[in-house]
Parts: sequence; C-alpha cells; structure tokens
Amino acid sequence: MSPMADLEPEHFLWRVEDRVAVIQFDRPERKNPLTFDSYTELRDTFRELAYADDVDVVVIASNGGNFCSGGDVHDIIGPLVGRDMKELLAFTRMTGDLVKAMLNCTKPIIAAVDGVAVGAGAIIAMASDIRLATPEAKTAFLFTKVGLAGCDMGACAMLPRLIGQGRAAELLYTGRTMSADEGERWGFYNRLVPADELESQTLELARRIAAGPTFAHGITKTQLNQEWSMGLEQAIEAEAQAQAICMQTRDFERAYRAFVNKQKPTFEGD
Amino acid sequence: MSPMADLEPEHFLWRVEDRVAVIQFDRPERKNPLTFDSYTELRDTFRELAYADDVDVVVIASNGGNFCSGGDVHDIIGPLVGRDMKELLAFTRMTGDLVKAMLNCTKPIIAAVDGVAVGAGAIIAMASDIRLATPEAKTAFLFTKVGLAGCDMGACAMLPRLIGQGRAAELLYTGRTMSADEGERWGFYNRLVPADELESQTLELARRIAAGPTFAHGITKTQLNQEWSMGLEQAIEAEAQAQAICMQTRDFERAYRAFVNKQKPTFEGD
Amino acid sequence: MSPMADLEPEHFLWRVEDRVAVIQFDRPERKNPLTFDSYTELRDTFRELAYADDVDVVVIASNGGNFCSGGDVHDIIGPLVGRDMKELLAFTRMTGDLVKAMLNCTKPIIAAVDGVAVGAGAIIAMASDIRLATPEAKTAFLFTKVGLAGCDMGACAMLPRLIGQGRAAELLYTGRTMSADEGERWGFYNRLVPADELESQTLELARRIAAGPTFAHGITKTQLNQEWSMGLEQAIEAEAQAQAICMQTRDFERAYRAFVNKQKPTFEGD
Repeated sequence: MSPMADLEPEHFLWRVEDRVAVIQFDRPERKNPLTFDSYTELRDTFRELAYADDVDVVVIASNGGNFCSGGDVHDIIGPLVGRDMKELLAFTRMTGDLVKAMLNCTKPIIAAVDGVAVGAGAIIAMASDIRLATPEAKTAFLFTKVGLAGCDMGACAMLPRLIGQGRAAELLYTGRTMSADEGERWGFYNRLVPADELESQTLELARRIAAGPTFAHGITKTQLNQEWSMGLEQAIEAEAQAQAICMQTRDFERAYRAFVNKQKPTFEGD
Repeated sequence: MSPMADLEPEHFLWRVEDRVAVIQFDRPERKNPLTFDSYTELRDTFRELAYADDVDVVVIASNGGNFCSGGDVHDIIGPLVGRDMKELLAFTRMTGDLVKAMLNCTKPIIAAVDGVAVGAGAIIAMASDIRLATPEAKTAFLFTKVGLAGCDMGACAMLPRLIGQGRAAELLYTGRTMSADEGERWGFYNRLVPADELESQTLELARRIAAGPTFAHGITKTQLNQEWSMGLEQAIEAEAQAQAICMQTRDFERAYRAFVNKQKPTFEGD
Repeated sequence: MSPMADLEPEHFLWRVEDRVAVIQFDRPERKNPLTFDSYTELRDTFRELAYADDVDVVVIASNGGNFCSGGDVHDIIGPLVGRDMKELLAFTRMTGDLVKAMLNCTKPIIAAVDGVAVGAGAIIAMASDIRLATPEAKTAFLFTKVGLAGCDMGACAMLPRLIGQGRAAELLYTGRTMSADEGERWGFYNRLVPADELESQTLELARRIAAGPTFAHGITKTQLNQEWSMGLEQAIEAEAQAQAICMQTRDFERAYRAFVNKQKPTFEGD
C-alpha cells in the first residue's frame, strides 16, 4: 500500500514525522467541530492505519487553543432532527465505527487536549489510549444538553473504566464540564502540561513509544480491548498466548542482546 | 396508575416535590436501621418507580444526622441465626432484589449521606447513581464484623468499579470505615458539602437533572447497567441503537429548536 | 495434609506465625529476581495453600530493601530467546499459573513493597489483594523494555481495574516507573508506611484479617474473582447464594452472640 505520509485528507490536517502521525481538526475559528464528512474521513483513516507500515503512533492534537467541539449543531444535529430510524441508526453506527476503528488500528493513540473537548470531541479523547491536557482543558460529555442520552459512541462502557462509575454517572447525567484538575485527579488525563509545551511534550512521548517494540505495542492494545469483558482466568490464558507470540519477535532478541552487551536496544517492530 | 406522590409508605418517610421523590429512613434515634419490613417496602417502591409518571429523580436523604445503619441486629440478624438454607436464600435474594429494583427503576438516584452509612446502608449509597456526603460521613461495608463475607447485595461487583479493585478489597476484608475524604478522593462520593447544605445542594442537583431529558436519562441508566459486562464492540453497537432511539424523541428536537432560537430548551421527557 | 508451617521451600524464605504465612524472595544482593525454579515452587505453594488449615492470610514481604526484580535476565530471558512456540507457551502458561494460583488460594494476600517491584515483581504485587508500600517503592511493568507486550500474567485485565484504564495504558506502553505517591493516589497501594514500619504494619494488618471470619474471607476472595466479568444482575444473585452459605457458618452465630452479650466476637473460621 502507499505510505500514510502521502495521505491528503480533505477534512483535517495530517502529517507524519518520525513514524508519528499527527491529526488536527481544522476549523479553529469554531473550536474544530466535526461534520459528516470529517467523521467518515477520520473513520476511514483509522481503518487504513491498521495496515500502515510507516506509522507507529498517532497523535490527535489541538488547534488554535481547542481540541474539538464535537458534532456541529448546524451541520449535524439539524439534519438529524426528523430523520427516520434507519437513517438515524446509520448515523450512530457511523460515529460508533470511528471509535471501533480507533480501538482496532493497532497503534497507540495520544490525545493532546487544550481548551474545548466536548461531545464527540470528548469521546475522541476518551477513545484514545493516553491523554495529555493543559490546565485550560474543558471536557464535557454534553449529550444530555441536546436532549440525548449519555450512551454515545461507547461512553457508558469506557468512561467508567477511566474515572470510576460514580464520577462517570455524574458527568453523563448532568453534562457538566470536567476541569483539567479533576481530569488529572480522576485518571482521565495522564498529565497536565502548560499550553506552550503541549505539542512538544506530546510528540516527545509519541516518539518514545514509537521507539519501543511496536509490534508488541499492537498486541498490548489488542489485549486491552480483548480482555475488556473476559473472565480473569481466560484473560491470563489469553495473555500467555499473546506474550508467547511476542517472544518470537526479533525485538525480544534485540533487547536481550543489547542487555548482554550493556547497550540500549534498537527496536525495529518485528 | 395512581401518582407516586400519593404513596404512603409505612416504614420510611416519602415526599414528592418538583418531580423529585425524597426517601428518608425514619428511626433517627437508632441511626435509621433497616428491618424486614422496610427492606421489602423499599424494594416494592423502587419497582413501582419504574412505571411512575410523576417522578423523574429519586433522592435518598439522611435523617437526624445519619443515613442508614443497615440491617438491625435484633430485628434482622437475630432471626436469621439458625434459619435453614431455603429461608436464608429467601432473605439474601430479597435484599439483592432491592438493589436490582434500584438499578432497574429507570430514574437517577442520588444518595445524600451524613453520618453513618454502614452495612446495607453503605450498599444503598453504593447502588445509587450519584452520592453527595458531608465531611462527617462514615461509610463501612462491615459484613465481615458480623462473621459474613464482603459479597453482599452486589458489593464485590460494584464497589471495585467505584473506587478501584484494591481499595474495595481492603474495605471488604477489614470492614473498616472509609472517611468522607477518602470517599471523595477515591470516587465513591461525587462531592462533599457542609451538613447544613446537604439537603439543599442535593435537591438542587436533583431538580437540575429532573429538568433534563428524562427519557434519555432512563436510557443512560439502562446502558450503564447493560454494558457492565459487555464486550467493547458490542457496547458501541448497543449505544448506537440506544442513542438512535433518543434521536426520535421530541426532547432532541426541542433542544435543537431552542439552540437555533438562542433559547434554553425546556425538556418534557418524551 | 501436613501443616504448611512445616514447608521448607528451596527458592524463597517461608515462615508461618499466628496463622499468617510470610514469603520473602531471597537474593537481596540482586534485588530478589525470579528464576524458573522459584516461579514453579511459588506456584505450587499457592496451590497447596488452597487446602491449608494452618494459614489464613499470606504476606509477600520485601527483603533487603527491595520486593522483587522479576524474571532474571540471565536465568530466564536468555534461555527463552530462540525457543520454539511450544516451549514459549509452556513458560508463559507457567507464569500465568502462578497468578491463577494466587487468585484461587482462598486466602487474602498482602504485598509489602519496599524498593524495586518490577516486571513479574510488579505483577506479584498486582495479583495480591492488598498492597502496602514505602515511599521508596518503585513499581514498573517494564515488559516493553525487553521487547515484549504489556499483556503479561494478567496485567491488561487487572491493572486497569486497580488504577484506571488510562493510567494502566500509559504504564504498559512506556514501561515507566510508578512512584509510591502515584501508586497511593491511583489506588495501587492501599497505604504508604515508613520502611522501618513496613513489616510490623503489614503483619498487624494480616493478623487483624486472620482474626476475622476466615471462611467468609475465602468467599469474599472467590466472589471478587467470580464476578469479574459477570452481568450486574447475575452478580447480585451470585452474592445472594454466597452470602446465604456464610449465614450458616458458626462464625455468623458467634458474632451475633457476642453482640448480644456486648462482647467482641472470637471467630474460628467455620
């Protein structure tokens, strides 16, 4: 396949450097809302990333001081009002497919959240693997504010596992903003960093993870998803099998050889 | 059916105002213990709430400085000693049915905890959706102190999802008191408020949630329960279906119309 | 069977006092690494503990300022490099069997972590029920550093339930050290204690739990495992059955009699 670096998406910014792909939504004057087109293009891009050979880590960055304001009221909510059930389900399945594609892309995803991350924007941060934020990050699962339920794109399943069932319930019933400090205390955000260091620290972390054993990272991501609802004993057997696969990679041998020679290993992802 | 506002329970206090039902246990001189009768009446009330048209949110409030001291030693534990297995299982299923009825009532439940919340009292707080408490709240899953296991009314399943598996294990093995500060840090309590503001702040939150899209709230509650042990991909599909249902409600359209007209939406729960 | 107090393991230190078994790894000069032999002996000991009548709680203590440095690079990783799949799976299943044996031993396990707890050492702490640590504890799931995936011995299933999905993902992708303070804030460690009090406070806690209703403790441990991936309603029914069993123990009656006589109950584990 053609390298992902050559991708030229129409509805978001895209670049690949040091095997790290960086996505940015691109309507900063409106806090980067999503449209039908950006949803589907994003879904298709994450589906393609599952097969990419030139990308090891994905960063979803902020733009113009905000992450993403979610589904645009005029472009998305308006047209949905009055649709029939078949059309509505086609839409909710398409947005759910974006999250499924993020989960199944086999590459770790890091969200770098500044400013507004609300609605589907909060979901995209939630469905990432690691989240950095600035003290100004304002995160809200505000579906209730537009008359909908909190169960959007996996939120009732995933948010409780990130911040606890009780905190998730409050955010989903009230739609209130979670401050950056709350997000860090509760485990939604892995770390808070100043706004002017958000991109550099996120890229540094991304490069560090990309320098690791990336085939094994893909197995870690797969197992975090696979074991979500497995019994404990079944999860342990699943990990025995998954880790045995990784023990046949050259990266495992490279690490051992480097250790014996008192060197730092150079991983190559195979 | 007759309005829930007309309910006249024998074994606890009950009132409905602004579509919020308020329950209070009513033996403050003994820190509000439960009896066989209050257990069953409470279970039946939550079962009835599933069909209620005049209640949108339920508050379980404290009374006389305490929430609930759990199963009365003389009224409950004494009679259980020496019962045969059929009778014991009838009792434990009845208490479990109270939790199931709380989970299935389709209305958000807010517990307002002051003072003692122990044994089944701690469970009732745990099985609520949101929990406010005063700095004086003392919460203990003290089944081990009466010679029993920590697995009572769902505690081994639910407590770990609220505060983490390790903290839950310690509380269940030792029966020790969780302080209000620990409860807030760990995610059991959503917020601590001064004792003299507990009722007003809880009712304010309840009214705010009741002013939201209450049909959608019921779907949020259903999905939080349904997705408890679902696979991730199945949960995302389940949410696509559930949210599509909500997109056919008038509340969804009301929110959109209000937004377009730069007004605050008035939700009506249909 | 012969009392566990008589056990004379070859590959770790072992003692039983006050019905508490204490395990210590025994190569403090190398921070207590594991070998094939200590892995299997440990697995077999936890399997035997499931039937032990003279042990109620297990403590895994530190030794010489460290807990456990995990699989020895020379003794374990070297020999694994180049093995065929059948042999690799035999190894990963053996290490997984250690965790399964810990989960199924029916006795609460308390880890007392000082200094280094990394790799399989971090897993052994994770698979315990309760964890105390010193401010000097350094915990790392560093499988990624040796070219492997984070899914080792149950980590992708268990670590997210202890500290949250997002924090677990970061630790597993980066292999970075979790400080003692982070471990306490995040719920991995139940409590931090000064190094010179670690053993005494751990043993005090172990004795307190051992003085409780130990048959019921075994049911608590069983249910925490059983309900891991159960539906909520199924978990509540499972607890109704499990708790009814405990209500037929003499310990339940002993607690009631003691309460009536205003005495402290003496539990005997039956």
